[in-house]
Amino acid sequence: MPEKIIIDTDPGVDDIMAMFFALQSPELEVLGLTTVFGGGLKADTALNAIRVVETAGRPDIPVVAGADRPLLLPRRREMGWPGHGEDRLGNMGDHLPQPKGRPIAKRAAEFIIEMVMAHPGEVTLVPIGPFTNIALALRLEPRLVQNVKQVVVMGGSAYRGGNASAVAEANIFNDPHAAKIVFEAGWPMVMAGLDVTWDYFALPALFEEIAALKTPVSDFISAIYPCYRDAQALPGGAIGIPDLHAVAYVVDPGLYRVRRMPVIVEAEGPLRGITAVDQRPFGPETPAVDVILGVDGPRIEALFKERIGKYR
Amino acid sequence: MPEKIIIDTDPGVDDIMAMFFALQSPELEVLGLTTVFGGGLKADTALNAIRVVETAGRPDIPVVAGADRPLLLPRRREMGWPGHGEDRLGNMGDHLPQPKGRPIAKRAAEFIIEMVMAHPGEVTLVPIGPFTNIALALRLEPRLVQNVKQVVVMGGSAYRGGNASAVAEANIFNDPHAAKIVFEAGWPMVMAGLDVTWDYFALPALFEEIAALKTPVSDFISAIYPCYRDAQALPGGAIGIPDLHAVAYVVDPGLYRVRRMPVIVEAEGPLRGITAVDQRPFGPETPAVDVILGVDGPRIEALFKERIGKYR
Amino acid sequence: MPEKIIIDTDPGVDDIMAMFFALQSPELEVLGLTTVFGGGLKADTALNAIRVVETAGRPDIPVVAGADRPLLLPRRREMGWPGHGEDRLGNMGDHLPQPKGRPIAKRAAEFIIEMVMAHPGEVTLVPIGPFTNIALALRLEPRLVQNVKQVVVMGGSAYRGGNASAVAEANIFNDPHAAKIVFEAGWPMVMAGLDVTWDYFALPALFEEIAALKTPVSDFISAIYPCYRDAQALPGGAIGIPDLHAVAYVVDPGLYRVRRMPVIVEAEGPLRGITAVDQRPFGPETPAVDVILGVDGPRIEALFKERIGKYR
Amino acid sequence: MPEKIIIDTDPGVDDIMAMFFALQSPELEVLGLTTVFGGGLKADTALNAIRVVETAGRPDIPVVAGADRPLLLPRRREMGWPGHGEDRLGNMGDHLPQPKGRPIAKRAAEFIIEMVMAHPGEVTLVPIGPFTNIALALRLEPRLVQNVKQVVVMGGSAYRGGNASAVAEANIFNDPHAAKIVFEAGWPMVMAGLDVTWDYFALPALFEEIAALKTPVSDFISAIYPCYRDAQALPGGAIGIPDLHAVAYVVDPGLYRVRRMPVIVEAEGPLRGITAVDQRPFGPETPAVDVILGVDGPRIEALFKERIGKYR
Repeated sequence: MPEKIIIDTDPGVDDIMAMFFALQSPELEVLGLTTVFGGGLKADTALNAIRVVETAGRPDIPVVAGADRPLLLPRRREMGWPGHGEDRLGNMGDHLPQPKGRPIAKRAAEFIIEMVMAHPGEVTLVPIGPFTNIALALRLEPRLVQNVKQVVVMGGSAYRGGNASAVAEANIFNDPHAAKIVFEAGWPMVMAGLDVTWDYFALPALFEEIAALKTPVSDFISAIYPCYRDAQALPGGAIGIPDLHAVAYVVDPGLYRVRRMPVIVEAEGPLRGITAVDQRPFGPETPAVDVILGVDGPRIEALFKERIGKYR
Repeated sequence: MPEKIIIDTDPGVDDIMAMFFALQSPELEVLGLTTVFGGGLKADTALNAIRVVETAGRPDIPVVAGADRPLLLPRRREMGWPGHGEDRLGNMGDHLPQPKGRPIAKRAAEFIIEMVMAHPGEVTLVPIGPFTNIALALRLEPRLVQNVKQVVVMGGSAYRGGNASAVAEANIFNDPHAAKIVFEAGWPMVMAGLDVTWDYFALPALFEEIAALKTPVSDFISAIYPCYRDAQALPGGAIGIPDLHAVAYVVDPGLYRVRRMPVIVEAEGPLRGITAVDQRPFGPETPAVDVILGVDGPRIEALFKERIGKYR
Repeated sequence: MPEKIIIDTDPGVDDIMAMFFALQSPELEVLGLTTVFGGGLKADTALNAIRVVETAGRPDIPVVAGADRPLLLPRRREMGWPGHGEDRLGNMGDHLPQPKGRPIAKRAAEFIIEMVMAHPGEVTLVPIGPFTNIALALRLEPRLVQNVKQVVVMGGSAYRGGNASAVAEANIFNDPHAAKIVFEAGWPMVMAGLDVTWDYFALPALFEEIAALKTPVSDFISAIYPCYRDAQALPGGAIGIPDLHAVAYVVDPGLYRVRRMPVIVEAEGPLRGITAVDQRPFGPETPAVDVILGVDGPRIEALFKERIGKYR
Repeated sequence: MPEKIIIDTDPGVDDIMAMFFALQSPELEVLGLTTVFGGGLKADTALNAIRVVETAGRPDIPVVAGADRPLLLPRRREMGWPGHGEDRLGNMGDHLPQPKGRPIAKRAAEFIIEMVMAHPGEVTLVPIGPFTNIALALRLEPRLVQNVKQVVVMGGSAYRGGNASAVAEANIFNDPHAAKIVFEAGWPMVMAGLDVTWDYFALPALFEEIAALKTPVSDFISAIYPCYRDAQALPGGAIGIPDLHAVAYVVDPGLYRVRRMPVIVEAEGPLRGITAVDQRPFGPETPAVDVILGVDGPRIEALFKERIGKYR
């Protein structure tokens, strides 16, 4: 039976790759996409998510709009990092199919609660943007802790430092209080942070193969990819695809090497957004997280290519 | 036309006095009582609120249960201050009428949103416990800012220092992050803090008069009052009734002297929960709060006595 | 026998008034002036102090240069507030007598230690700039705590909010870590903060009388006064003279109304530099400070005028 | 010409090994030992240092006592970690030769200033305890920055987490404000943190060889070693000797692998004492530190053994 998941997302180039991957994975049943704020003056993350489900031929999958700002930090619309473009579609939104549908008339946190409580012990939450919706859902409905199956996040960094700051990964940095709530909840949790990104880079050849597929999905990926690649500015045009790993872990945890450690989130001050790991021995009563430290690059790449290749 | 209000409360002795006052005030239409966590190992704040509406002969008024813990701080059940008793009914819960009804099947934050959005510009929120429900409602539905009439809080302190700590009043101290959200929201806001409490003390003679009324409401007040009075330990058995003032301000702002100032809430560190006022000149773009600094003691006492006297 | 004092200062207009007052007060024996950094791109606080002793006819009094930056905060030279001028002489340094002497070849913290340890129990320290030198001296020589007579500071604010920020007075704000060390030391301590300033304002008539004296000291004061007065921008040209009160308290504590309270200094975050008072009852083991809350305005003004009038 | 160094120390078992190593290294000229507070109810770090120079046959080397507490944190005498023993001599102080000399009549910070200023550009400071003395010296005499040759510290951790807390190494944790001052000073700086410790462990065989030497120095080491080894509780009785590496780096930097990175110290809150490295590209104007990441274990061990073997 496929794993029920909700992807909570601020699409976003790598979010979109991750969602196309998910929507063609038979191991997953995507209950819905919930959306959260993301930087970019022209970005509407809910409409971006609708474009994804429509392009994937899955307009039946509900898209639910959520938090438009962090819990405590001030609202900000400007991008920090230019890789997603001002529309979070690599600045190609005007050239991509326009969304036809609308977000459903619910709030993301409420949708999450409803789904989890309707399927106790079965739903995996996969936040790949700031964790604001997840934190709000948990504070609205504390029984989520016992009723969720697991929470697999893209966010944080164990050993690789930060991207939004010297020490902080952007999803944590942009709502560190929400991250604190999520990391301290005591539910089964997996962290795909920058350690994973740095352990597998995708090369341009992969995206040339995808471009050659000439499907609506491959066209979409090909349109948004250059902006993202250029902003990463890595040797050889390599890119990390962080959000992909949170989804792929649910598809097949065997692709990843994991170490269980407590994670300490700091929400204030110069280290805001750090996810410091406690490497010392710890007891069963300490909430700990399965921190992904390594990835089987060739297999994840093959799997990604296979799934994108299934679209017609 | 009476003012529509929602009282958000962690009853609590002075909460209960304030609610009995509200429920007999023709200036107010109480849309509902939403409840929030409060210290006390045997306390159930929602059931306490139900006892209040039932004793007041108003079982039609909905009671809605809300947050059972602060946004960021750890959950705690023990009382800081013993004045409310372990049941928040002055340890007299076993001797008072048991609740017959149940909280309605909603969450407090959702009820608040529903009511405010159904009556745009008409609803006054009156939080007299920690502000967790109000903060959650605001983050779930940002349009509350424009659609609420005003927010009149009991909480904080401008010049009188703290009660929960050297600098912090308990409602702020117990969820300072929620308080920060509420104070920084930019909606019309009034703060009845410890400054008010210290400006009017009720003497035992008032409660002797109330006891002599021999109504269910006066019996209820008389039962819970001694624990609260004894814990305050003020000369002559005087007590402050902080929560009363937030409600009474809505009934008649003319009872109070107010100064408009920015209020800075600190959520972290040794000054956690302080509400520091900015006494310097400030511009119209700075969110400022009407801070109540003085109260017309004789008039508020007369009004309270009159309203409690109307119960049969 | 006169009180031995060391004035630790960042002159500064009101510092200079306070020092001229001190140097003509028979109740005091000024052992030396130690200097500390102060804002102003052209300011040399040690040379300013030398101008003061030379103008006062007391070139025998040692001037000792000290810290050129705060303990933890970054070094900054720009002024926050323009009242002292870029030279901290009301921008009149070029028109005032140039300093002839030099600071003695010691460091301020070492001079303080030497003097206090040479006269155990007899020396009063009077810091009227940031407390960096005092903090360094205390950490270099912990026995200062037992050997100082008392520490009378100009700095902080109990009820009047801040001047350097909404909540912080400038001497604390500019080295809050040093202030924390000084307030937590456990020595006998008196705080003349903004509460005093707001309780007594000097009017232009006073400075007209001083100007009419036509002595070098009165000329000096008259030169530096206008910049300071204009920057305060109070009705009627009134000014507060904060530094004067720390010195005058040593001359005659009877001029002041005091309340003993613990003072909490916060060195970090948005409330950096606040001096929050604990108004609750406290025990003898809690370090507390004599916080000056009121001043006998007419008497302090008369005394100041008398002392300045003694210069020839 | 040998390198002039001052070792600033809180001996301490590994401090003592490092000092015996230094005192027999022809590459070094030890100008003096300055001492700083260390945990242990019976510990006198200055007298411990005197025992070291006397046992090493170098009573001519000055020992100078310094700070007895951290800059901002409260004074504490209890040990955190039991490995040094209550006397910081592995609880063997009563069985070791008693100190005959006394610390010289100076303060550590003043001695450091005097030595550095007397030999501009020639003195290497090697703090292997909390950095309080170094920070005080720097704030007393800002010209140290230009006049020191380099500062080689034992303290902090780049990738190995903490020992005093989840994230903090003890020398930083015990005076994080001093560490912040030292790391932000802008002088040439090398950090031997826990990364080094974890990269080389000494096995019991080494200490058996040392014990067999039967010299006063080998007896001293053999006496204090068991307490330290047992508290580390590593497999096979292995131990890290952190303080050794700071000294050995000065002797021969070629023993170590280094990466230059900015280091961010947090002095407050739950991450107090963390030394977070900034792995991103940085410019020449950013103060950066040579962080030691690897050690040539066999060569350092051979060198240590050789030097200890030279004692008679």
